[in-house]
Amino acid sequence: MYRSPLREIRFVMHELLADGALVPGYADIEYSAELGDNIAEEAAKFAENVLEPLNRSGDEEGASWSPEGVRTPKGFKAAYAAYVEAGWAQLSVTTELGGQGMPQLVNTAVEEMMFASNMAFFLGTSLARGAVEAIAASGTAEQKAQVLPRLVSGEWMGTMNLTEPQAGSDLGLMRTHAAPHGDHYRLFGQKIFITYGDHDLTDNIIHLVLARIDGAPEGVKGISLFWVPKFLLNADGSNGARNDLRCISIEHKLGIHASPTCVMSFGEQEGAVGYLLGPPHAGLSFMFIMMNAARLSVGVQGLAQSERALQGALDWARNRLQGRVAGKPAPVAIIEHPDVKRMLLSMKARTEGMRALCYFAALELDKAHRSADEAQRKAALLRAELLIPIVKGWCTETGVEITSTGVQVHGGMGYVEETGAAQFLRDVRIASIYEGTTGIQANDLIGRKLARDRGAAMNALIQDLLAELNASRALMPGAKAARNAATEALTTLRDATEAVLRMHAEVPALAQAVSVPYLMLCGLVLAGALMARAATVAEAALVANADDAFYLAKLQTCRFYAEQVLPEVLGLARVVKGGAASVADTASELI
Amino acid sequence: MYRSPLREIRFVMHELLADGALVPGYADIEYSAELGDNIAEEAAKFAENVLEPLNRSGDEEGASWSPEGVRTPKGFKAAYAAYVEAGWAQLSVTTELGGQGMPQLVNTAVEEMMFASNMAFFLGTSLARGAVEAIAASGTAEQKAQVLPRLVSGEWMGTMNLTEPQAGSDLGLMRTHAAPHGDHYRLFGQKIFITYGDHDLTDNIIHLVLARIDGAPEGVKGISLFWVPKFLLNADGSNGARNDLRCISIEHKLGIHASPTCVMSFGEQEGAVGYLLGPPHAGLSFMFIMMNAARLSVGVQGLAQSERALQGALDWARNRLQGRVAGKPAPVAIIEHPDVKRMLLSMKARTEGMRALCYFAALELDKAHRSADEAQRKAALLRAELLIPIVKGWCTETGVEITSTGVQVHGGMGYVEETGAAQFLRDVRIASIYEGTTGIQANDLIGRKLARDRGAAMNALIQDLLAELNASRALMPGAKAARNAATEALTTLRDATEAVLRMHAEVPALAQAVSVPYLMLCGLVLAGALMARAATVAEAALVANADDAFYLAKLQTCRFYAEQVLPEVLGLARVVKGGAASVADTASELI
Repeated sequence: MYRSPLREIRFVMHELLADGALVPGYADIEYSAELGDNIAEEAAKFAENVLEPLNRSGDEEGASWSPEGVRTPKGFKAAYAAYVEAGWAQLSVTTELGGQGMPQLVNTAVEEMMFASNMAFFLGTSLARGAVEAIAASGTAEQKAQVLPRLVSGEWMGTMNLTEPQAGSDLGLMRTHAAPHGDHYRLFGQKIFITYGDHDLTDNIIHLVLARIDGAPEGVKGISLFWVPKFLLNADGSNGARNDLRCISIEHKLGIHASPTCVMSFGEQEGAVGYLLGPPHAGLSFMFIMMNAARLSVGVQGLAQSERALQGALDWARNRLQGRVAGKPAPVAIIEHPDVKRMLLSMKARTEGMRALCYFAALELDKAHRSADEAQRKAALLRAELLIPIVKGWCTETGVEITSTGVQVHGGMGYVEETGAAQFLRDVRIASIYEGTTGIQANDLIGRKLARDRGAAMNALIQDLLAELNASRALMPGAKAARNAATEALTTLRDATEAVLRMHAEVPALAQAVSVPYLMLCGLVLAGALMARAATVAEAALVANADDAFYLAKLQTCRFYAEQVLPEVLGLARVVKGGAASVADTASELI
Repeated sequence: MYRSPLREIRFVMHELLADGALVPGYADIEYSAELGDNIAEEAAKFAENVLEPLNRSGDEEGASWSPEGVRTPKGFKAAYAAYVEAGWAQLSVTTELGGQGMPQLVNTAVEEMMFASNMAFFLGTSLARGAVEAIAASGTAEQKAQVLPRLVSGEWMGTMNLTEPQAGSDLGLMRTHAAPHGDHYRLFGQKIFITYGDHDLTDNIIHLVLARIDGAPEGVKGISLFWVPKFLLNADGSNGARNDLRCISIEHKLGIHASPTCVMSFGEQEGAVGYLLGPPHAGLSFMFIMMNAARLSVGVQGLAQSERALQGALDWARNRLQGRVAGKPAPVAIIEHPDVKRMLLSMKARTEGMRALCYFAALELDKAHRSADEAQRKAALLRAELLIPIVKGWCTETGVEITSTGVQVHGGMGYVEETGAAQFLRDVRIASIYEGTTGIQANDLIGRKLARDRGAAMNALIQDLLAELNASRALMPGAKAARNAATEALTTLRDATEAVLRMHAEVPALAQAVSVPYLMLCGLVLAGALMARAATVAEAALVANADDAFYLAKLQTCRFYAEQVLPEVLGLARVVKGGAASVADTASELI
């Protein structure tokens, strides 16, 4: 049973990241730490009481397809109605658009709990918020008035339609096309992998669709963005006739069974009626607006499933009695076996590191939007953009590892679906693929985020973290170990960054051959620096109260991170510096 | 579609490992490299033509339970009949028992292909051979005559019944008990996780069951071994009345769906008739006989699913067209993208490393049985016993990683079950759990295999490999990189071994806290040394024929292994040397 980690969340929001910095910028909503806590507590209740009970049953039943449309599993419709009723759909939408305008930091905390309790449920609504942002950025006043209120409230849901069978990561190969037809267009084509492309949660669905206007240039520069409703809208705003689009099948997937992954067919008859958003051929830039927030969200999925797997593994390890250890009556709870304890600490330390990094990136996004000073906003935006591929790539890859360790802790029972441990692995496995694979994130990181300022944003971040570590006291053994290991790791990252920049300037393919190891290095090290900060915070609290279990536990995980997780940095750094040629010199025919 | 990697298998058997050394010891069967090749070729055909076509359908349909018994998926019964007809069941059984007496090396090659083409099918029959060995080691002449011929031929299958709900890794907690009853016993109790505990492949099943004779001592020293037939045997050897045992349910698992994992109930009525094998209370020692061979087999499963995943990923990456790279017409096959190439090389290099290590361990087992010299036999046995937990632990953990990378190479399609990539991950995920988890293997490695001779067998192995590397030429860049990296890695392993031995002598729990990282280090490094040997072999062949694609490819993977895989050694070694206290000092209540 999922228990929202509110104490950990409060620690990261207030003690580790000092969300007090948000107070002036979010004066419009009267942001305070207390407000943040209240929202997190309400989200915790919703996650635990409404979403968690549907996670396993949703997986077992799955979404189902029929010619009439897609049906979500039992209970999902009522849960969605409760979600809308409670106002969760509006949480992070700006107040101008009728939302609650909460900082991304708070939204990230809420997302963590929602994804942890039911990833398959929350996926649809998290993408729907991306659609709101894209329409807000691209639409005319009239278009916004027409569709945004009901998307913001959650009365409707929105989808993103990018992928086609022959056009996955390479959107330039897209074939779906749009023929001008009076004030609108008629769309024709097939889209795949459309999350919640059809469902029974809302009575209309607004599809955002990328397509080529007939005669448009080839490649990505000829792609436009359209909104295409499932039901056409009558003049009074009510749902009219069915548009010429349908879900022709759903995928049978490894996980997230309750989330329908649809093959969408547009224009089997006269063409699906769609409305251009923004100027022609500028579709991709608006999709990229949604992408940043979506990629952070997907990183949070890695964190969320890891926390969930950790909780399950801990419950099991505390209750399963097997074997003996010196000094305890046999049989002992398996958590007492050193290797089981190591696995649990590995899960916990990495999960805490991921949470720190995800929330850190979210706070930078908030600073980018709301800092008083323009230079600060700009620096924060660069930092957030730098962090997002790292968060997305590292947290999802780590999520796969941690959920797999969760299965391992359960032994044979972990392999039996009844336990639930396997579901977390199956569900999270998609996260390192969708919204851009880890390879795509890594290319974004080195090819765009590093190369555009020749590493300035990365080096500034490393420098800031090193300066902070240098100034911190860290006298207790755990804190000292964390500080020293993080300092060494940051220095290693600085060298590796230089190496990557040099390779990229000379032969981009060399840098690309080690881009994923570099991304993983970034995630490990940056989270390690935040874990060292966490150790310092814990140390200070323990000076005041030496028996505080929360901070004692925090020091333990920080030390474990330093001594059993951060050493991975050594191997990754060597690969980054010396491994590229073994890929680049390889003839692909010989593999 | 699976293609048996016969060229790779021949390379390892003949060129890397020089199986000519087996010729004198296996004079009884007139072993020759040609014989080994012939058998491998026949196995390849069987795997490709009979087992492979049932792999996906078996996963989709799964085994099914009814009160009448367990039914295997469509086609399995005919495949099993063909398997028996072709004599595969007898392959590795000694000639004295009516088998073909093939070396373990050949058996390992056959197992690789059988497991790769259909792990769920081959599991049952691979365990049945374990039952043959246990009965051969423990049974009276009469017992052997009664059951072995039909187990050896494959007319019957055998099972191993160890686990109970409360007794998993801790067999001392076992409760199933046996009441003496004339010349036999009556067994009562429940066993879980019984692979192929019931099925429709054979008309009788011989269950090997661990149980306590009433009044036996507590703990593992009170456990006896029994054979318990599904159908009692009439005096003429025909099947008689149904014994008092049944499969009461099968598990719904993450993978190996076609392999029924049974909950077995013994003695719901008058007690299941069972016959004691060997002396009372000595059951565990006979189970350990089966265990060594079974653990090597499970390591081979890690290798096999990795090879299978590699082939699927390569097929996809050569045919999927997306994006552009400098100097090639767009869109290119995704294998041309550096990160995809890196993933494929990582899969291939690790798979080749695993194959080298699995076959190396198998050859040591053969030397242990058949070397002319007793000292050599003894040394080989110690080496084989040292290697087996490493093979089991490292190859299965690596198998999970490689099959997951296989999913990643496919992008979104990898998450769709239709592609098949996800099945390899689902199937192999059990391998690091059953027959002793990786943690159990690691404890066996440090607590038994290292500690019993204070590291002598390990250091002798390291020394032999270092001496070989030192004497090798390695002039070509790939071979040189492989040799230098392996030399450094072996030295690191020597230091880490010393550290583990020291910790184990002082505080065993410290060594146990880094036992899995140590095991992973052993696997990586020993396979790395064999990859360096492979590079030397390839170099010699390329001196004779510079264009030979096989050896050019081999040099590529050896170099990649040296430059992108072996660096992981650095982090693992640091964890082994400095990470133990962060676990041992941790209070489990605070995790």
